[in-house]
Amino acid sequence: MQPVDLGKFDNSHYHPGRSRLLQAAWFFAGLPLLRSACLPASGVRRSLLRLFGARIGRGVVLKPGVRVKYPWLLEVGENTWIGEDAWLDNLAWIRVGSNVCISQGAYFCTGNHDWTDPAFGLIVRPITVYDGAWIGAKAFLGPGVEVGECAVASAGSVVTGNLEAYTVYAGNPAQAIKTRKVRSGS
Amino acid sequence: MQPVDLGKFDNSHYHPGRSRLLQAAWFFAGLPLLRSACLPASGVRRSLLRLFGARIGRGVVLKPGVRVKYPWLLEVGENTWIGEDAWLDNLAWIRVGSNVCISQGAYFCTGNHDWTDPAFGLIVRPITVYDGAWIGAKAFLGPGVEVGECAVASAGSVVTGNLEAYTVYAGNPAQAIKTRKVRSGS
Amino acid sequence: MQPVDLGKFDNSHYHPGRSRLLQAAWFFAGLPLLRSACLPASGVRRSLLRLFGARIGRGVVLKPGVRVKYPWLLEVGENTWIGEDAWLDNLAWIRVGSNVCISQGAYFCTGNHDWTDPAFGLIVRPITVYDGAWIGAKAFLGPGVEVGECAVASAGSVVTGNLEAYTVYAGNPAQAIKTRKVRSGS
Repeated sequence: MQPVDLGKFDNSHYHPGRSRLLQAAWFFAGLPLLRSACLPASGVRRSLLRLFGARIGRGVVLKPGVRVKYPWLLEVGENTWIGEDAWLDNLAWIRVGSNVCISQGAYFCTGNHDWTDPAFGLIVRPITVYDGAWIGAKAFLGPGVEVGECAVASAGSVVTGNLEAYTVYAGNPAQAIKTRKVRSGS
Repeated sequence: MQPVDLGKFDNSHYHPGRSRLLQAAWFFAGLPLLRSACLPASGVRRSLLRLFGARIGRGVVLKPGVRVKYPWLLEVGENTWIGEDAWLDNLAWIRVGSNVCISQGAYFCTGNHDWTDPAFGLIVRPITVYDGAWIGAKAFLGPGVEVGECAVASAGSVVTGNLEAYTVYAGNPAQAIKTRKVRSGS
Repeated sequence: MQPVDLGKFDNSHYHPGRSRLLQAAWFFAGLPLLRSACLPASGVRRSLLRLFGARIGRGVVLKPGVRVKYPWLLEVGENTWIGEDAWLDNLAWIRVGSNVCISQGAYFCTGNHDWTDPAFGLIVRPITVYDGAWIGAKAFLGPGVEVGECAVASAGSVVTGNLEAYTVYAGNPAQAIKTRKVRSGS
């Protein structure tokens, strides 16, 4: 008989940090509005996320379809873009710097499980993306990942380790493929 | 002139096994309800799937956004979790054991095509996931795949062959990377 | 201080080619209708795309959930299939031949950014898929990709270079794995 018993899973030590009432308000009202295409402007989306506790900098662009698990665990700097259908699954903090591009369909995964544990205990780890980085379309970032300044996770890459600054990564698993040089501004 | 002619595709030998009326009822009523976030509780989702012929064990957790092609070709054991936006595209049987975790965004593909055939004939093959296995977030399982007891398909992996029991796989194509050891239960 | 400044991003040189009014009509009315599962028949979807300027050949099959950015930048031949949740993100032309199968969840990405540019300038490049090719489920095609006649991008593959005719590719990044031989038609 195999040893895993999900009936023994105990999530009582995890708490996302707000009341159940606020969680329900986000899930049934805030999130559907955030994802909706009927809000064409980023400004309304920024206000909505801030209303639920997110720290969102000036000039942040938010496209339709963006999904955030818990807005109060989200911090985004200035002039950062979050593309269509990006999914920030923040059971733990997701911190995104300024001038970051998160392209369409990117997925940020903060939850893991202890697979040596018969009760499959939950492990959550934050994700941090530093200034100037680019997370490509449909890229996957795993729990605990830190993306260095101006690093690039290419479209479709699967990232489970930290990414060095000014370095371009691609593949599954993602590997460094070249250096990113940025020209001086005009 | 190239030889493929999809106008000659003939799907008349394939039948999913229920009446067109029931298929339509699932497609237009059951499935939208299953996917909806307005059903917060797993119990209602389990009942809905059972109503359309699925065999769903006790304690199965079903998150919003789960998609099932034909419920009458789905069998799930006890205490299994099916995560947000998991897509069980079961043109053929999908059988999932007990204490399995299918994480968010996982996709199970049972349909293939004969690419040597100018008419691109459909080939369907079942997928089987044995007890205690874990299919990670955004993982892909292809037609005919069998996932052994307590095996792990890591997040983002693309699986087209069988996975050995108690073994962890990652990458595209997925490859064995380590053994999974599970501690004795307390 | 890092050099990327998305506040300097200037998209004024890019124009998708129709009036803002038509763009809005597509975004708020046409596209939701195209994606909706309430249109079961391909015929209505073909007409809808043509109404907004797409060139769609006879016998094209369009499943629910298909997403097209700008229909007037889309050309599809005859008897081609476009599967559930396929996403044709055509900032530039996407041209698809006849008898092509684009499977469920495939994503066509035509937009890139100049990562050496502090203002992260947009670069768009067309995608072309020649007759008889197959783009597998959840496959990714990047900007500028040309898929040769009867080539196959396997399910889950990430394609950033051109694919040779009659060749099967798999993996991330996609690599040639075998030749595709098609039998003579009956």
